[in-house]
Amino acid sequence: MDDRGKGDMDRSRYVGVIGAGSCSDAIYELAREVGHEIGKRGWVLVCGGLGGVMEGAAKGCFEAGGTTVGILPGPEREAANPYIHIALPTGLGEARNVLVVRASEALIAVAGGYGTLSEIGLALKMGRSVIGLETWQGIQGIEHVSTASEAIEMVLRRLSHG
Amino acid sequence: MDDRGKGDMDRSRYVGVIGAGSCSDAIYELAREVGHEIGKRGWVLVCGGLGGVMEGAAKGCFEAGGTTVGILPGPEREAANPYIHIALPTGLGEARNVLVVRASEALIAVAGGYGTLSEIGLALKMGRSVIGLETWQGIQGIEHVSTASEAIEMVLRRLSHG
Amino acid sequence: MDDRGKGDMDRSRYVGVIGAGSCSDAIYELAREVGHEIGKRGWVLVCGGLGGVMEGAAKGCFEAGGTTVGILPGPEREAANPYIHIALPTGLGEARNVLVVRASEALIAVAGGYGTLSEIGLALKMGRSVIGLETWQGIQGIEHVSTASEAIEMVLRRLSHG
Amino acid sequence: MDDRGKGDMDRSRYVGVIGAGSCSDAIYELAREVGHEIGKRGWVLVCGGLGGVMEGAAKGCFEAGGTTVGILPGPEREAANPYIHIALPTGLGEARNVLVVRASEALIAVAGGYGTLSEIGLALKMGRSVIGLETWQGIQGIEHVSTASEAIEMVLRRLSHG
Repeated sequence: MDDRGKGDMDRSRYVGVIGAGSCSDAIYELAREVGHEIGKRGWVLVCGGLGGVMEGAAKGCFEAGGTTVGILPGPEREAANPYIHIALPTGLGEARNVLVVRASEALIAVAGGYGTLSEIGLALKMGRSVIGLETWQGIQGIEHVSTASEAIEMVLRRLSHG
Repeated sequence: MDDRGKGDMDRSRYVGVIGAGSCSDAIYELAREVGHEIGKRGWVLVCGGLGGVMEGAAKGCFEAGGTTVGILPGPEREAANPYIHIALPTGLGEARNVLVVRASEALIAVAGGYGTLSEIGLALKMGRSVIGLETWQGIQGIEHVSTASEAIEMVLRRLSHG
Repeated sequence: MDDRGKGDMDRSRYVGVIGAGSCSDAIYELAREVGHEIGKRGWVLVCGGLGGVMEGAAKGCFEAGGTTVGILPGPEREAANPYIHIALPTGLGEARNVLVVRASEALIAVAGGYGTLSEIGLALKMGRSVIGLETWQGIQGIEHVSTASEAIEMVLRRLSHG
Repeated sequence: MDDRGKGDMDRSRYVGVIGAGSCSDAIYELAREVGHEIGKRGWVLVCGGLGGVMEGAAKGCFEAGGTTVGILPGPEREAANPYIHIALPTGLGEARNVLVVRASEALIAVAGGYGTLSEIGLALKMGRSVIGLETWQGIQGIEHVSTASEAIEMVLRRLSHG
């Protein structure tokens, strides 16, 4: 019996959720479901700390009892959405995208624009798994799924073999 | 009666503790006491996540029930000391010093070498209060104190008038 | 008669060339042609300073009399290819991609992998024009062309209306 | 006869000049002299690209025929002083200080405030020589001199044994 793998998955995981700072209600809800899946496992959700997908995901994780980290582009902590436990202003602008990716063991992209595209590129470059929900098509390496629970299943599979 | 000021001080504060990655037992213990003062108030301790003063401070905060954030220079989470709740690898090298300072509302320097000196300069440049314990002398702007509890008293005073 | 616009185009431009650190001979040659077009106008070529597309482009620009800037991921200047006039080690790892984009008024992507994808995302996010040569397909915003001279024509058009 | 050492010193050197963005006429003139010494050797002067000491140094180097690189904190190239050949906007804020230091083989501090102090700390941490002209006192590791030519003599001595 191999308990090590199980133990590995019991420790807290850092999962990034990336997406645009403004989004439709449907995408916000999808992000919230993703965050909920992360939070109910007691994991750490890493995101950019602002609105839209970042807020939806943080809200879901927060409500489910997980920990939320927001790595902000500007110099002011106050820019963080209200569901961020640990808000880190960086003053680095877009360069903070690199930190969101670096701090995540795997990433879930929910829809998203060019900023998200840059994070997908960085994540695949750094060897992180990228799971996609209604996000950029045609990029080899993204594993597309249809629901929040499928996204988490994929994260679990990738991290347990990581 | 003005409850607002009091309420302000009740919310979680982010206090940075800066110092070298290796240090004497006496300095480690001093850092631990500083961390303990931060932790027992339920605040967030921000540090560079490695050994020495960073570990001593994180240990004290961890033991007292606070939250510890380690912003690491390298790309690997595993480099964090065991008392870090939220470990953030950056891969930025020395540039992560800027992030430690930016994320802290006030900083306490415990002894320290050139890396600490760079953080003191950045903190004073960004308008953060810097409280010093057995640290660099002759730099206008550092407020020198002698004990961990004096350091926290000074942080409280500076943040309540901030 | 409006000389100002013309004058604007006479001043030195900063054009980024992005692509992978290793590539086929054909792509290297294409990058060299792009660099040549930049160099013969006396412009500044900005790139990541390493091999492959970065070297091909720098070589072409260097030979044609332009100036080449290499923004390196590592801490060592010696990693720059031999056609870089100004080599800037950063020690920031992948985060240096942000600097390549920020320092470029427009970018030409020549083939490229995930690192290039991250730069394309960042460039489009920051409002830079991205001209593509045999690069990522299916990303709205990239203007695809077939030859080095078409790429420069497109850069000229975008910058003169910028 | 060993020509290699001599050859080493003939190649272009990258020397950083650090100091405040505003300064007295006397300090501006001193910075200009330092820049002149760098420029007449055909070296590359690295600085933060803004006014004050950065401008004085860039002006001296520019006039003497050297190359000037300005690594700017903001996102706009236009913030560079008029004596910068290669202006690199970063959008990184104070974190650009790390890049100025990393790109310099040795640094000359001319007067300066807290930003300069942070660069001195980073430079000494990274093992760069720091030569001081009317700058921060009491920091072990800075080599204090009195004139621009003495500063360059010291740079030459340190780099030839580096």
